[in-house]
Amino acid sequence: MSTTSSQVSHLDATAQAELVSSGEVGPEELVEGAIERAEAVNPELNAIIHPLYEEAREAAAGELPEGPFRGVPFLLKDLGASLAGQPYHAGNRLLKEIGMRHPVDTALALRFKSAGLITIGKTNTPEWGILPTAEPDAYGPTRNPWDTTRGPGGSSGGSGAAVAAGIVPIAHANDGGGSIRIPASVNGLVGLKPSRARVSEAPLVGDSMSGLVCEFVLAKSIRDIGTMLDWVSGPEPGDPYGTPLPERPYAEEVGRDPGKLRIALLTDPLTGDTPAPAVVEAAEAAAAQMEAVGHEIVRPEMPSAFDEVDLFETFIDRWASGQAQTAELIGAIAGRELTPEDVEPLTWALIERGRKVTGAAYLAAVSQHQLLTRMIAGMYQGFGFDLILTPTLGDIPQPLGTFDDSGPDPMVAIEEARKFAAFTGLFNATGQPAISLPLAESTEGLPIGIQLVAPIWREDVLVRIAAQLEQAYPWADRRPRVFADGE
Amino acid sequence: MSTTSSQVSHLDATAQAELVSSGEVGPEELVEGAIERAEAVNPELNAIIHPLYEEAREAAAGELPEGPFRGVPFLLKDLGASLAGQPYHAGNRLLKEIGMRHPVDTALALRFKSAGLITIGKTNTPEWGILPTAEPDAYGPTRNPWDTTRGPGGSSGGSGAAVAAGIVPIAHANDGGGSIRIPASVNGLVGLKPSRARVSEAPLVGDSMSGLVCEFVLAKSIRDIGTMLDWVSGPEPGDPYGTPLPERPYAEEVGRDPGKLRIALLTDPLTGDTPAPAVVEAAEAAAAQMEAVGHEIVRPEMPSAFDEVDLFETFIDRWASGQAQTAELIGAIAGRELTPEDVEPLTWALIERGRKVTGAAYLAAVSQHQLLTRMIAGMYQGFGFDLILTPTLGDIPQPLGTFDDSGPDPMVAIEEARKFAAFTGLFNATGQPAISLPLAESTEGLPIGIQLVAPIWREDVLVRIAAQLEQAYPWADRRPRVFADGE
Repeated sequence: MSTTSSQVSHLDATAQAELVSSGEVGPEELVEGAIERAEAVNPELNAIIHPLYEEAREAAAGELPEGPFRGVPFLLKDLGASLAGQPYHAGNRLLKEIGMRHPVDTALALRFKSAGLITIGKTNTPEWGILPTAEPDAYGPTRNPWDTTRGPGGSSGGSGAAVAAGIVPIAHANDGGGSIRIPASVNGLVGLKPSRARVSEAPLVGDSMSGLVCEFVLAKSIRDIGTMLDWVSGPEPGDPYGTPLPERPYAEEVGRDPGKLRIALLTDPLTGDTPAPAVVEAAEAAAAQMEAVGHEIVRPEMPSAFDEVDLFETFIDRWASGQAQTAELIGAIAGRELTPEDVEPLTWALIERGRKVTGAAYLAAVSQHQLLTRMIAGMYQGFGFDLILTPTLGDIPQPLGTFDDSGPDPMVAIEEARKFAAFTGLFNATGQPAISLPLAESTEGLPIGIQLVAPIWREDVLVRIAAQLEQAYPWADRRPRVFADGE
Repeated sequence: MSTTSSQVSHLDATAQAELVSSGEVGPEELVEGAIERAEAVNPELNAIIHPLYEEAREAAAGELPEGPFRGVPFLLKDLGASLAGQPYHAGNRLLKEIGMRHPVDTALALRFKSAGLITIGKTNTPEWGILPTAEPDAYGPTRNPWDTTRGPGGSSGGSGAAVAAGIVPIAHANDGGGSIRIPASVNGLVGLKPSRARVSEAPLVGDSMSGLVCEFVLAKSIRDIGTMLDWVSGPEPGDPYGTPLPERPYAEEVGRDPGKLRIALLTDPLTGDTPAPAVVEAAEAAAAQMEAVGHEIVRPEMPSAFDEVDLFETFIDRWASGQAQTAELIGAIAGRELTPEDVEPLTWALIERGRKVTGAAYLAAVSQHQLLTRMIAGMYQGFGFDLILTPTLGDIPQPLGTFDDSGPDPMVAIEEARKFAAFTGLFNATGQPAISLPLAESTEGLPIGIQLVAPIWREDVLVRIAAQLEQAYPWADRRPRVFADGE
């Protein structure tokens, strides 16, 4: 490899694509470098569970689409967007046993491909994306490159660890309760959950538990986020829902003056949990940083009406209904009904709970979340603020094994998840765009993410302020302990 | 009244608003005329069940907003959009008994008000909007002004009869399975169901059974439809979903050349029912009319994959879940659980069915409909057509009592409804915009509506072709037998 490419692991996707478009480095060299880095660090991290190295080499040697990320190595999460014929196990031992391969190309996977990205593998995920870590029985734990005794966040934990460790500059992720923002926070990355329905699920159907999930990526820079959002957002034929389109491309929001924003600092989550002092302090410090670049911080009281909605229980009603639906679907694939042996204890507990939730109770839970959505929108209007600022998580990166469902009550794992992901799930319920930025760190030197939340469809505001903060408080030079520095 | 206003009942809302803006007729005179017409024909029709005449007179005498329909008399359906304090019984005897009044202004009702419309009353609806007629036990049947032995369609049947009889030029309606298009068809009116989420339900929550229902109006002219859609569409704070915005105002699509469209004629509904020859012939004749103004008619085979989805059963799973949810809500309002005595037999049967549908089965039904949506979208693309053309209904206007749930199995009423509304429900499942136009009539001289269906978010195409057809085959001079011709 050339001397240039030995430093490739430091570069974001835009910079790597520039190496290709300038002719300085070829796609084959970029892909080979990424595979070498994967081989160097993945044995320790277990981030990539399905290497697709030969396929990637072939793609790099062939004709590549003229997209914005032409020749850049990439990873798909083993859940959600997928290409036909690729392994697809979603962290589940039954799908692993039957050697499940994805039956169709999803539109999003095709858009990643048409961007010029070259998929070198698929990354680890907890079973069906349920937990805020990536430690499935089927594939074992992914380790956090900042501290390998800790988890990589989840559910897009494999993607998070791989990007943080410098294997690829950007990787696929999706977020139904925090699964993009959580690994962004614990791996020191940028993670945007776009607005509900901004990114199409085509040709899949299922409604993502009525719009809890949105797909996107984990990245290192805001310009990558902007360019990728332009590329993958927008409807596909047969989508059940859409969104208003942005005024201008998101890439053009990078560097544009965000103006003076009123930002509401919230450090008490609606789950009723008490976040760790480290993350509250981090959010306070981030608020001070935002004031320092000209924004106004306000500290609104949450109206007492919020107490009347049990965010967690209603969330679990939706989530469990979705798991029961997934169980039916996987049963249809496997040709038999699922048994407790086919899934992890927590998954089974959720399936069983989901089977008892009625359609009316499901719709009532959705209604409660829509009520919360109206109340939150009312707060933006009533208090006149532009963004909400929270710690992304309720705590610093947690030790492996924290979300343990092997005890007598597997649901304790989801209670732990609630405490950890106390600030993220609300914005899946509301459908608002939310970004986690790597602005802070703990006394142990572990990353702490800061979450900014815009009104629905206002990703433009997030991109503008995130780029401003990236400029003022750059994070590009921070590296985890396990990092593939080239050879 | 002036000689001009004696012919007011013939005018659409735009023309009535022009009388006001030109100073020819005052709002008070318009409202008084509408009340007189209501008093003349409503005893026979039973379209208006809550007269709000005093409130209307007061509004007409006061300051009116400078909207596009300033001073024009209007009716709200007694279901959906409502103003705080107005009676709200939704065709239900329990809500009637407890004297329910609507607790809040809905955003749509406020937009009607800000358009300058003056609500003179609320119109009849079947219980909870379930049937394609308006014959609730609580308020008795509305009669069709073309033949008072027949039903007015539904669920927006009271609004349909009132507009057809010339009481008001335009009235509120909503459509979760055909409830705008059905009364448009049987009353000889124009009925557009906008795209899913085009019109906000704010501040209400509940998701309309995951987007089955869209609110709008019944009208006499396409220009009224265009102007009204511009006025009431677009999101409100806290909406869970949105839509892309149109390229230009819909009002500006009226009179704009639609170009040569490829239109797919479908006369076999996905429900498996066989439509009456009269409506098939009407659709064929409408197709010939469309060819005559320059469009191309194609007759695609429905792909056999459509047979794998049971549209009706999955629809009932969603619908019954919604009724079970409504039962909970009304129970909360009434302070006790509902009993079979509180609702009609069909409603109770649906509630009981809904209570047995699990959240997973509900989501599976939504998934099946999303699969249909993708297949339909694929047909537009694959066959290269712009619109689907069907008869709006499976039959001509039906005698009162057709949808009878008093027998041993109340569900036979919903089977009858399925046959009658065989072409409408599909597009609630898919979320596409669909319009019923009064282009045909039966040998008995009864109106037969023709349905045109665009891809989702393409109301612009519907407005353009509908205005072209209105110009070529005008319907404005056709009058039902019961018509309030002024005094």
